[in-house]
Amino acid sequence: MTLAKEQDLVLLLGKDGKRFIFRLSPGDELHTHRGFIRHSDIVGQPLGAQVTSHLDYPFYLLRPSIHDLIMSSKRESQIIYPKESGYVLLKMNIVAGSRVIEVGAGSGAMTIALAQGVMPTGRVYSYDRRDDMLGLATKNLSRLDLLEYVDLNHRDVAEGFDETEVDALFMDVREPHLYIAQVREALAGGGFFGALVPTTNQVSALLDALIGERFVDLEACEILLRHYKTVPARLRPEDRMVAHTGYLVFARPVAPEQRPEAE
Amino acid sequence: MTLAKEQDLVLLLGKDGKRFIFRLSPGDELHTHRGFIRHSDIVGQPLGAQVTSHLDYPFYLLRPSIHDLIMSSKRESQIIYPKESGYVLLKMNIVAGSRVIEVGAGSGAMTIALAQGVMPTGRVYSYDRRDDMLGLATKNLSRLDLLEYVDLNHRDVAEGFDETEVDALFMDVREPHLYIAQVREALAGGGFFGALVPTTNQVSALLDALIGERFVDLEACEILLRHYKTVPARLRPEDRMVAHTGYLVFARPVAPEQRPEAE
Amino acid sequence: MTLAKEQDLVLLLGKDGKRFIFRLSPGDELHTHRGFIRHSDIVGQPLGAQVTSHLDYPFYLLRPSIHDLIMSSKRESQIIYPKESGYVLLKMNIVAGSRVIEVGAGSGAMTIALAQGVMPTGRVYSYDRRDDMLGLATKNLSRLDLLEYVDLNHRDVAEGFDETEVDALFMDVREPHLYIAQVREALAGGGFFGALVPTTNQVSALLDALIGERFVDLEACEILLRHYKTVPARLRPEDRMVAHTGYLVFARPVAPEQRPEAE
Amino acid sequence: MTLAKEQDLVLLLGKDGKRFIFRLSPGDELHTHRGFIRHSDIVGQPLGAQVTSHLDYPFYLLRPSIHDLIMSSKRESQIIYPKESGYVLLKMNIVAGSRVIEVGAGSGAMTIALAQGVMPTGRVYSYDRRDDMLGLATKNLSRLDLLEYVDLNHRDVAEGFDETEVDALFMDVREPHLYIAQVREALAGGGFFGALVPTTNQVSALLDALIGERFVDLEACEILLRHYKTVPARLRPEDRMVAHTGYLVFARPVAPEQRPEAE
Repeated sequence: MTLAKEQDLVLLLGKDGKRFIFRLSPGDELHTHRGFIRHSDIVGQPLGAQVTSHLDYPFYLLRPSIHDLIMSSKRESQIIYPKESGYVLLKMNIVAGSRVIEVGAGSGAMTIALAQGVMPTGRVYSYDRRDDMLGLATKNLSRLDLLEYVDLNHRDVAEGFDETEVDALFMDVREPHLYIAQVREALAGGGFFGALVPTTNQVSALLDALIGERFVDLEACEILLRHYKTVPARLRPEDRMVAHTGYLVFARPVAPEQRPEAE
Repeated sequence: MTLAKEQDLVLLLGKDGKRFIFRLSPGDELHTHRGFIRHSDIVGQPLGAQVTSHLDYPFYLLRPSIHDLIMSSKRESQIIYPKESGYVLLKMNIVAGSRVIEVGAGSGAMTIALAQGVMPTGRVYSYDRRDDMLGLATKNLSRLDLLEYVDLNHRDVAEGFDETEVDALFMDVREPHLYIAQVREALAGGGFFGALVPTTNQVSALLDALIGERFVDLEACEILLRHYKTVPARLRPEDRMVAHTGYLVFARPVAPEQRPEAE
Repeated sequence: MTLAKEQDLVLLLGKDGKRFIFRLSPGDELHTHRGFIRHSDIVGQPLGAQVTSHLDYPFYLLRPSIHDLIMSSKRESQIIYPKESGYVLLKMNIVAGSRVIEVGAGSGAMTIALAQGVMPTGRVYSYDRRDDMLGLATKNLSRLDLLEYVDLNHRDVAEGFDETEVDALFMDVREPHLYIAQVREALAGGGFFGALVPTTNQVSALLDALIGERFVDLEACEILLRHYKTVPARLRPEDRMVAHTGYLVFARPVAPEQRPEAE
Repeated sequence: MTLAKEQDLVLLLGKDGKRFIFRLSPGDELHTHRGFIRHSDIVGQPLGAQVTSHLDYPFYLLRPSIHDLIMSSKRESQIIYPKESGYVLLKMNIVAGSRVIEVGAGSGAMTIALAQGVMPTGRVYSYDRRDDMLGLATKNLSRLDLLEYVDLNHRDVAEGFDETEVDALFMDVREPHLYIAQVREALAGGGFFGALVPTTNQVSALLDALIGERFVDLEACEILLRHYKTVPARLRPEDRMVAHTGYLVFARPVAPEQRPEAE
């Protein structure tokens, strides 16, 4: 039985489904729509326990998942959802020890997934040209104690990257097709390239640039997640769903042709 | 620049898209549909290089991703695809150090994803009641040097589990709803439960059992992956797709009610 | 060139996409969010013309499609959308001259599609056990001059139908599986049965009842419609979509077995 | 009770789901994978009856639906499926009496849906530049006695159309965006334009041309049909599905601006 202790990151889940993620700090109070709870009343409780607000409303004491952390990250831009980031991790082989570049840190939602994937021995090099986004990503990563696995860089990637021979590089920027030469410089031979782009025009432009820069193993896809209402006797999908976040494009750079050849 | 060396697990990708995954062993030869290649001719080549068969057919030398490994695992049953397993890893918080039970090892495709997620410090306890499946899973895991992170157990889970207080438990068996009491015994308070079931009737039965055993934070969903043809000037989805692998169900056990209360 | 004339049903489409459907009646005025327009100023204008409100806001003068009429029908319940009703018409062979029973008139959206399909020589027999729904359906059909093709009946279908040997019968009620014996009485041999049900449990129950009552050619399906933003240079799906309206189930009754036989 | 009679178009449905559509002609025999059946043994049987082959294999005697006819039309090219054609009929207001141009008759599958929609008083003007396609469409329409509602024209539509003021015009050709000026000449003011195109690049090009030629009420969408296995106790989607047939684009031409104006 694990007991919640000071400085733990916890999730309180209300009976109505409302979620609160925060770090336990004994002097503090959590204020909810259903009354407040003293952090000191949570410390020492076993995970899975029920705690109640001063209005006697019940909450469950849980540990947040990466999924919870991504979905709850403060955002000022469209984030990459777990339905995509989970697939990206497997497709781009983000494992303990990987060195990964991320272009377009944004709110840091994808950075969280990448950092969790490469820890404890790998590293994420994250770039953004907007200062405010880097500030927000820093805040979101720091809340989860993930900053030690991430370098955040303020730069327009047209200028290229500091790193070379990285295992993987993921882009979430407006016109990724403009930067494929720079990507090639940074990625290890046969490394993993991935990008998320919102429009079909961008998919076409990106595929075109990748083919031109001699990337192979091209994949373009989209992932749809459909939730169901969890009522056993009346099982049915939710009425509405997210219809589109973006298209995923993957490819791997290979060595230039060494001799003329008819394909 | 990384050079392929003896005992490396490599992927040869033919120009026609055919994939061969194997471990480099200098005395061996790879026999393809387009001629053979001596392993000793690959050792020492940089990743991303082009190597050619004795018929002069070109292949790219790459490192396989977890995605490649899952998709290429030898199978005697339906496997869990990366579109689902990636989401499961984030949703069930499978991170370095996690202790996870898997019920229904099957061909070991999900076991691969779990082992990659918990390594180097975590552990996967995998159960199957079929000996032949355990043999196949062992083979698939051993090929990838992942066996050291996995305990394979031959058991009908109706008898319960050896482990307690595990962080997460994932089921891929025919009637998961029959074993929820056993699941509760093994899972830590507030731990992560997940299952994949193929039919809507099973989703209903499972939700029912979970609610009965006081699990909360229920989620039921399905994930659809749609591939596009990677032709920039004629971008369009593939003509056909996998329409269904299974429904994912997630939940977390919480402590029993301590007092009567009207909800 | 067709000119709008008195009593025509017209659609005014604002430049902002707002739609107004009404019948031209010279003494009347249309009041919009962007000023009013006198019907008498519309009469005599060619279809496709631009008319302007007293605030000089431009509207296009168009004829409404069945799609427009269905989507604009006043509703007090979930309606059946054109993505489903169009498929139903072809699947259930609703053609000029068909005699069709509809169970669950609701707001009359499906009744509109059926009436348009069977006219000028066929007939729709529509049942509902709620008086208010029949009133609403009457209003919606009358607005479109379709009442002459439809009989509206106030009845609980547990009591059976007045008609026999109908070509097709469509149900949109809560528990269609309870009424399959009555359906069999009304439908011609080999006729077309269809239903829309919202939950998977209902699909199972309905299929079970249909198989029990010796229906064949079973089909169960769902139809998803995904809209795209119509911006040529930034083509992408809309962010959100309707994820579920209902499942469609189709079947056809056949004669009872004439002799024992092993199938 | 309706009895099958000479010259009726009938559907024999095998117990295994095999379908045979043909016209009853007393001297003929139907040869199936399970033995033959004399047409004269079918004439006089009630619809819904069971008939058996000389090998005693059971078939159900049914009337084919438009859906059956479309799906069984002989094809030498990709056809437009009922999931799309049903929606097109409602969206483009194809009703009894409509005058409709179709560009790209192909195998005639869409022509069948259009002809059924406009009969008995309307007309379909169908164009194709390939002689072989017109021959095939003729054959498919004639089999269904629908030829009397259709004009088939051998022409490249770059040359324009013979008809003007048509209610609706549907295109299924490779580059519809090249012919929008000709479309405008033929369509009535505010008439209904629709097209099916397979690639996103074509959608962009078509939207661009339509906006340029002053069409309004633009809609671009795709329709997905997912079938379920009809087993009540194990309800689940089919394993695979058609992932893409094409994108649908709709628009309506309006009168040119009569005065300069800032929108």
